Amino acid sequence: MPNYKITIEYDGTGFNGWQRQKNASSVQQAIEEAIFKLSQQKVVLHGAGRTDTGVHATRQIANFIIEKTYPVGVIVNALNFHLKPQKVAIIDAEQMPEQFHARFSAKKRYYRYIIINRLPPLIIDRNRAWHVKEPLNVELMIDAAKSLIGCHDFTSFRALCCQAKSSIKTLEELRIEQHDDIIEFYLSAPSFLHHMVRNIVGTLKLVGNHKWQPSQVKEALAAKDRRSAGPTAPPYGLYLYKVDY
Amino acid sequence: MPNYKITIEYDGTGFNGWQRQKNASSVQQAIEEAIFKLSQQKVVLHGAGRTDTGVHATRQIANFIIEKTYPVGVIVNALNFHLKPQKVAIIDAEQMPEQFHARFSAKKRYYRYIIINRLPPLIIDRNRAWHVKEPLNVELMIDAAKSLIGCHDFTSFRALCCQAKSSIKTLEELRIEQHDDIIEFYLSAPSFLHHMVRNIVGTLKLVGNHKWQPSQVKEALAAKDRRSAGPTAPPYGLYLYKVDY
Repeated sequence: MPNYKITIEYDGTGFNGWQRQKNASSVQQAIEEAIFKLSQQKVVLHGAGRTDTGVHATRQIANFIIEKTYPVGVIVNALNFHLKPQKVAIIDAEQMPEQFHARFSAKKRYYRYIIINRLPPLIIDRNRAWHVKEPLNVELMIDAAKSLIGCHDFTSFRALCCQAKSSIKTLEELRIEQHDDIIEFYLSAPSFLHHMVRNIVGTLKLVGNHKWQPSQVKEALAAKDRRSAGPTAPPYGLYLYKVDY
Repeated sequence: MPNYKITIEYDGTGFNGWQRQKNASSVQQAIEEAIFKLSQQKVVLHGAGRTDTGVHATRQIANFIIEKTYPVGVIVNALNFHLKPQKVAIIDAEQMPEQFHARFSAKKRYYRYIIINRLPPLIIDRNRAWHVKEPLNVELMIDAAKSLIGCHDFTSFRALCCQAKSSIKTLEELRIEQHDDIIEFYLSAPSFLHHMVRNIVGTLKLVGNHKWQPSQVKEALAAKDRRSAGPTAPPYGLYLYKVDY
């Protein structure tokens, strides 16, 4: 049966996260329902990243297996038609070999986190970035970030409810850029723990506003205890922007 | 009496433009009402650019004269408090000499126009950019834009209802940049005619999708007739982002 890979953009503000759940709207459910409207078939959609409530995606990847073959243009247009007016769109579709699985076949995930560092409230970027009022020193954050890059036990940066078997992850990239009052974090890894990106950003922010020394981030990592790291940054600054296969 | 210059950000989607009018919400009115809540004084707010319904601003400038002196931090914080939850914020405030006038003292206005050039619907950038589905050739648009730079009679690019005394304007900058599927137009001039930026973008888009030759833009300009140029691009791609004094 044909296996379709779809690329998805969504505004996390309108959903209770990626994953289907009872009594709450999810991106997965919205798309599964659109596929049902197109095909009259109940399919299961597998997503590369199970983003939380409020987290956005510009290029989430998912796949589903379905009985009938459709031209990929029909998949894109019909699903977008049925998804309206919800804040989710299908950017692209591609037919894949039967063994392709958006989650298990993924080789690398890429996340971007945006902080806007200014006093006045956010307007254009409301729900699109974390609004941090205290001035942040980006050089200190870049310095502190170095100790997180590479293969480590990230227990300190993992949500207590995280279900991953191992807390050992390889953070291949943690790059921080500043453009005027915008501070962008780029993170990539084969896989991440639950809340890992937001816990890293929340901890680096403590360094940026001089509450922590950069060296304390390394100590927090070594402690392997969630209580030793900083708070979880809010979801609406986070974007899943790429998945490699 | 003290004369305050304020820098303003707003999401044009929530307002019927900058200018106060009967039976419709405007940015000017929202801020004048916030000033009244702070001071119990009815002031008139003068804006540098009278943006239309749906047009955004990241750094609109306005001024108002008021009886009492306030620290600028109080102006910013109190107005932002009273403006909530409307989609407008005061970014900065400064006390100016009495003769300063946000509109008449302005030396140069800067606008940015954003097109997102892709097939699927916009999600993250809905109401933040013009969604153009037909592929646009940016090189052709850059070529066509050259004939508009400089001092010209812009009658062909002026709204029929435009009230400016002269249609002769000096377009100092018309720069077009492409980053993936985002096409950005940067325009600056001492002043603009009504709808001038949107009419320029709407006309260049005809060149971008091969409906017009680049040379037709020069001919449209020379015709000095609104009917000879292209349609008006939608407002929600347009941002007033800077004013020089």
